[in-house]
Amino acid sequence: YVELRSDTFTLPTPAMLEAAASAPLGDDVYGEDPTVARLERLAAGLLGKDAACLMPSGTMANLAAVLAHCPRGGKAVVGRESDLYVYEAGGASVCGGVVYEPLPNQPDGTILLSDLEEALTVDRADPQFAVPALVALESPQNRCGGVPVGPAYLAEAAGLARRHGAALHLDGARLFNAATALGVTPAELAAPADTVQICLSKGLCAPIGSLLVGEAGAIGRARRIRKLLGGGMRQAGVIAACGILALTEMTGRLAEDHENAARLARGLSGLPGLELDPGPPATNMVFFRVRDPRHTTRSFIDAARERGVRMEELGHGRIRAVTHAGVTTTDIDHTVNVLRALLTPPVPTPGGGR
Amino acid sequence: YVELRSDTFTLPTPAMLEAAASAPLGDDVYGEDPTVARLERLAAGLLGKDAACLMPSGTMANLAAVLAHCPRGGKAVVGRESDLYVYEAGGASVCGGVVYEPLPNQPDGTILLSDLEEALTVDRADPQFAVPALVALESPQNRCGGVPVGPAYLAEAAGLARRHGAALHLDGARLFNAATALGVTPAELAAPADTVQICLSKGLCAPIGSLLVGEAGAIGRARRIRKLLGGGMRQAGVIAACGILALTEMTGRLAEDHENAARLARGLSGLPGLELDPGPPATNMVFFRVRDPRHTTRSFIDAARERGVRMEELGHGRIRAVTHAGVTTTDIDHTVNVLRALLTPPVPTPGGGR
Amino acid sequence: YVELRSDTFTLPTPAMLEAAASAPLGDDVYGEDPTVARLERLAAGLLGKDAACLMPSGTMANLAAVLAHCPRGGKAVVGRESDLYVYEAGGASVCGGVVYEPLPNQPDGTILLSDLEEALTVDRADPQFAVPALVALESPQNRCGGVPVGPAYLAEAAGLARRHGAALHLDGARLFNAATALGVTPAELAAPADTVQICLSKGLCAPIGSLLVGEAGAIGRARRIRKLLGGGMRQAGVIAACGILALTEMTGRLAEDHENAARLARGLSGLPGLELDPGPPATNMVFFRVRDPRHTTRSFIDAARERGVRMEELGHGRIRAVTHAGVTTTDIDHTVNVLRALLTPPVPTPGGGR
Amino acid sequence: YVELRSDTFTLPTPAMLEAAASAPLGDDVYGEDPTVARLERLAAGLLGKDAACLMPSGTMANLAAVLAHCPRGGKAVVGRESDLYVYEAGGASVCGGVVYEPLPNQPDGTILLSDLEEALTVDRADPQFAVPALVALESPQNRCGGVPVGPAYLAEAAGLARRHGAALHLDGARLFNAATALGVTPAELAAPADTVQICLSKGLCAPIGSLLVGEAGAIGRARRIRKLLGGGMRQAGVIAACGILALTEMTGRLAEDHENAARLARGLSGLPGLELDPGPPATNMVFFRVRDPRHTTRSFIDAARERGVRMEELGHGRIRAVTHAGVTTTDIDHTVNVLRALLTPPVPTPGGGR
Ligand SMILES: [Ca+2]
Ligand SMILES: [Ca+2]
Ligand SMILES: [Ca+2]
Ligand SMILES: [Ca+2]
Ligand SMILES: [Ca+2]
Ligand SMILES: [Ca+2]
Repeated sequence: YVELRSDTFTLPTPAMLEAAASAPLGDDVYGEDPTVARLERLAAGLLGKDAACLMPSGTMANLAAVLAHCPRGGKAVVGRESDLYVYEAGGASVCGGVVYEPLPNQPDGTILLSDLEEALTVDRADPQFAVPALVALESPQNRCGGVPVGPAYLAEAAGLARRHGAALHLDGARLFNAATALGVTPAELAAPADTVQICLSKGLCAPIGSLLVGEAGAIGRARRIRKLLGGGMRQAGVIAACGILALTEMTGRLAEDHENAARLARGLSGLPGLELDPGPPATNMVFFRVRDPRHTTRSFIDAARERGVRMEELGHGRIRAVTHAGVTTTDIDHTVNVLRALLTPPVPTPGGGR
Repeated sequence: YVELRSDTFTLPTPAMLEAAASAPLGDDVYGEDPTVARLERLAAGLLGKDAACLMPSGTMANLAAVLAHCPRGGKAVVGRESDLYVYEAGGASVCGGVVYEPLPNQPDGTILLSDLEEALTVDRADPQFAVPALVALESPQNRCGGVPVGPAYLAEAAGLARRHGAALHLDGARLFNAATALGVTPAELAAPADTVQICLSKGLCAPIGSLLVGEAGAIGRARRIRKLLGGGMRQAGVIAACGILALTEMTGRLAEDHENAARLARGLSGLPGLELDPGPPATNMVFFRVRDPRHTTRSFIDAARERGVRMEELGHGRIRAVTHAGVTTTDIDHTVNVLRALLTPPVPTPGGGR
Repeated sequence: YVELRSDTFTLPTPAMLEAAASAPLGDDVYGEDPTVARLERLAAGLLGKDAACLMPSGTMANLAAVLAHCPRGGKAVVGRESDLYVYEAGGASVCGGVVYEPLPNQPDGTILLSDLEEALTVDRADPQFAVPALVALESPQNRCGGVPVGPAYLAEAAGLARRHGAALHLDGARLFNAATALGVTPAELAAPADTVQICLSKGLCAPIGSLLVGEAGAIGRARRIRKLLGGGMRQAGVIAACGILALTEMTGRLAEDHENAARLARGLSGLPGLELDPGPPATNMVFFRVRDPRHTTRSFIDAARERGVRMEELGHGRIRAVTHAGVTTTDIDHTVNVLRALLTPPVPTPGGGR
Repeated sequence: YVELRSDTFTLPTPAMLEAAASAPLGDDVYGEDPTVARLERLAAGLLGKDAACLMPSGTMANLAAVLAHCPRGGKAVVGRESDLYVYEAGGASVCGGVVYEPLPNQPDGTILLSDLEEALTVDRADPQFAVPALVALESPQNRCGGVPVGPAYLAEAAGLARRHGAALHLDGARLFNAATALGVTPAELAAPADTVQICLSKGLCAPIGSLLVGEAGAIGRARRIRKLLGGGMRQAGVIAACGILALTEMTGRLAEDHENAARLARGLSGLPGLELDPGPPATNMVFFRVRDPRHTTRSFIDAARERGVRMEELGHGRIRAVTHAGVTTTDIDHTVNVLRALLTPPVPTPGGGR
């Protein structure tokens, strides 16, 4: 089958598994795993930051970041369509007494600076207001179509946040995809943010782990929070070894995923009853809607799955197909054929038979 | 001076103070204050509900309601412009690990049912989602202009909420104003909701206190939460005695406040450089903007204050004037004169000197 | 009947009710109630502190204090027998993510300095430990028999706390009773603490309210927390007026309550099957156990209640009788007679019939 | 060097690393990693429970258990010396609004049933009390000397808990050590508990991971909480593969660690100035104090470390040495020699040289 539900389905490479088996190990809860230390230094260097901290998931890396920046009762200004707000169970309210303020994401993944400005402008002396301590942005912005949000916007948002006493966190779960699409370095993209989350187990193919990268103070606080949340892992070098290869060997191949996504989008754009939404992909995700009286979103997904093509609904009525290392050009062409067959022959237009 | 900043500035009536001084008292933390019990029964009866619980403030009544309905990690769907979300410090996230999901308020104070439906539709088995347990609405809706939200809409929203396993809380801080404006009974307005908050110290003139009114189970849970938050008060009959008069003697006079608000709006609508926003009032609040090159919002408020008229900014660039028992028709006319003077003579239009 | 369950059952004096009816009022949520301001300045002055903040209850005053001193994840070191830990629903864990560390109270109400030292000594750099940010003590210590804890011990504990970076909060719900018993001023007792809670509605007879008093920074933070918890009250001058008389007119009479408690203890100490525990009272509470085969603790309390004497179990198997302004010397003598009758004739000792 | 600081320092076996490299993998956040599923079924079967859930750490497994059993504001009754209370940063108060009630641990690791009974006996209708929802016990009990707590006691405690409406969680981080020492099966030890935490990365040598095992409802709730905390891991089969070998191949060898601990204790018991506390080990930990004027606890640990023997202070003034797969009998004898040398020649007794 062709697995297009998510790039989280990537599997570790043979080189990763070999590295895992031979990595020097220690107890990372005591700070003594040399492979973890090496990965953390590597990530910090790549992103041009002081420090990094390995986490079992991107959810925890984001959660620890929000808690590191926001005191109890502080407010985190987030995108209405951000993964951090939509898919992470509201963890910062639960674990940290943090109030989310979701603002609309624009089609390009950004939040209007005027919206940010309004949300950040509160009378801090007035106890009726939760005080914003953080702006969290996402690049690429998954639910806006995997659209990369670039360094110029991030720098403006960061400046605005700082003028209001707030920090900027960047959910860069797919930061290397964004950097690839934008033709900038990861460090350029990370530069405006105080902390950045990067995921090792999506396009980069490591089996487990995300990193929180940023300035030393925030990472120190996040490391303490990691322990409290239960994210301290013992001989974590076994997964860090894979992560080192993820960062050193796997970022170059993301362009291929983007090409495959573009190829898929081209193939789908001609199909009757299928509509790209929001349009051609900039990174590794194709979103579309099916408008065909023979199908609901769910029945279409199920029919594709029976024919060996796995995709998922994401948002209300939109289907997402994500390319990654486990998806070849041949898989893409096969997918187009399968979906075309589900939509062909086209539903005759009324009176069309005459 | 004329106090138009809020109807919270109302003072207790002489009858209230006399009632406070002669009320039978007991220790309400032991459930033994007869005057509190009488007030709670009265409120429940007026709103057609099982039970009521006296709280030191509307903020606590709302907070206890949200916590009574939402378990840790549950989601409260609220209006983007609701007092509960904007002005209550995010208490439910802090004290209860509840996630707010703010949705846009329409100009009529409602939330689109389609927006509610989308927010309530989550896969409850999927742990990445916070599960909605409550919809909270407000009537009248302060930040939308004090617009009353009526029972038909509330019933539709309640039905929708219940179909998705969520409860409906109504922030009726000014419920009697809404009922007056709509020509319905408070019970008709309260009927669709599981719990309702009513405030005694706004238009109804009691010095302290709000009530949470609703079905017995929710009120029982809220009463427990009240103790935890520190809202249990000892000889609370001294304030409950005022509250009894608030509910029995003061609701009839709210129509007068509405007439005064309408009179103020009429007086202001003709002024140059002053624009009602959103238009004529339905209850006791007039909102407007000043568009005059001689004034900022702040300088206009300050200038009015120097001339004995107190108003406040509410929202970004809007000024609110609230009528209440301490504001007479003469006060209204004086206010119009003062504001007219600040805006007169009108700024000459370019070329107007010819 | 004679009400000995608690001194919370005190009723406001006629002078208080008169003061409530004539006090200048304002909206205290806007900081404009002159009577509240006067009460807060008075309390701060009496205790020799910077500032004070009126709260609807002692529970909220304690809760706001703990949250003002402890960040999320901080630890509050408290007495195992403290009201704050036992009777306040764990509010600081719920509302503030604060971890309680209860330590044994000694019979004199103190916590051993060696126990405090051990609890405060943690490696702050090690994320596995919650870091102590507060020591909370109580004087008089209710569950240890209403025993006053004196300024010398409090100063030692405060010094210890500060050397470990923690603050000292004093739950002085009955601070004036402690000061009276010890022959020191309230300010002397309050001096070692960063914040002190005093209750107006116990022996001092005000109907509602407690004050948190302390250094300006902590009170400022507590004031913000009060709003979040829903403790901001509008025309709170009606209760503050009573509180002013509580602090100026009522503290002198507490000695009389102590004499009545001593008189009750003397009367009870001779009764068969009744044992004072822990012994004669230092303030206004008498604790005892009943050891008589005809009674359980509960049946004894119920029998006394039927005969017009109200007391309550406090702790496991101990009965508490509290004296206050509503209890006269005649009431005390009546109480002794009633309880004697319940225990007489004494149960014959085996073989005693010969 | 000889690593005796903790059995967490164990390294994965070659067989584990080979298994990790060849295990079938999937995305466990989607529930599709077959190796994780196999490990979870294996653990549930071994402990005679319905279900299991893989966690990145024992801290998270314990935290998720406490949150699965305790609602917001519920109380968790725990051992004063339990790892869950002492070393896990108070996570349940922070993330779940749960109140800890620590009770004294007896030298045999248990909590007195009378203490449990008193803690569990609260008036649930009275809102001033946090209501106990959980008793958490630990076997073996680390800070009491690694003493195994047996099934008979656990069954009594479980019965008591249930009679009061509370669940029983067993922190069995070293459950297989306890079972080995007691000569019972893991399932016999786990039987009384609703949920059990077992650690894969201590004596069992897996690099990462703990399991929460128990009845289906609680595990379902814990799985949801795991996502919120950020404990969902993608291709977690790489560590689950090691865990399968931990459970199938490594439990038999724990007896060897216990023998080595006994050998170490025998060797140390004869040394001057060294005192076993609490005495000979039942499992794999030796605790002792040094009473020698030439050493503080810290200087002794440092001196041993310089000579290649690593141990750590645990508790105030006690040193812990833990045996595990990385420690041979030769290592033990070397350790005894090194420590003997640090304490020899004995400090001359006064006048002893004459
Ligand atoms: Ca993957
Ligand atoms: Ca008022
Ligand atoms: Ca007037
Ligand atoms: Ca009283
Ligand atoms: Ca290990
Ligand atoms: Ca070795």
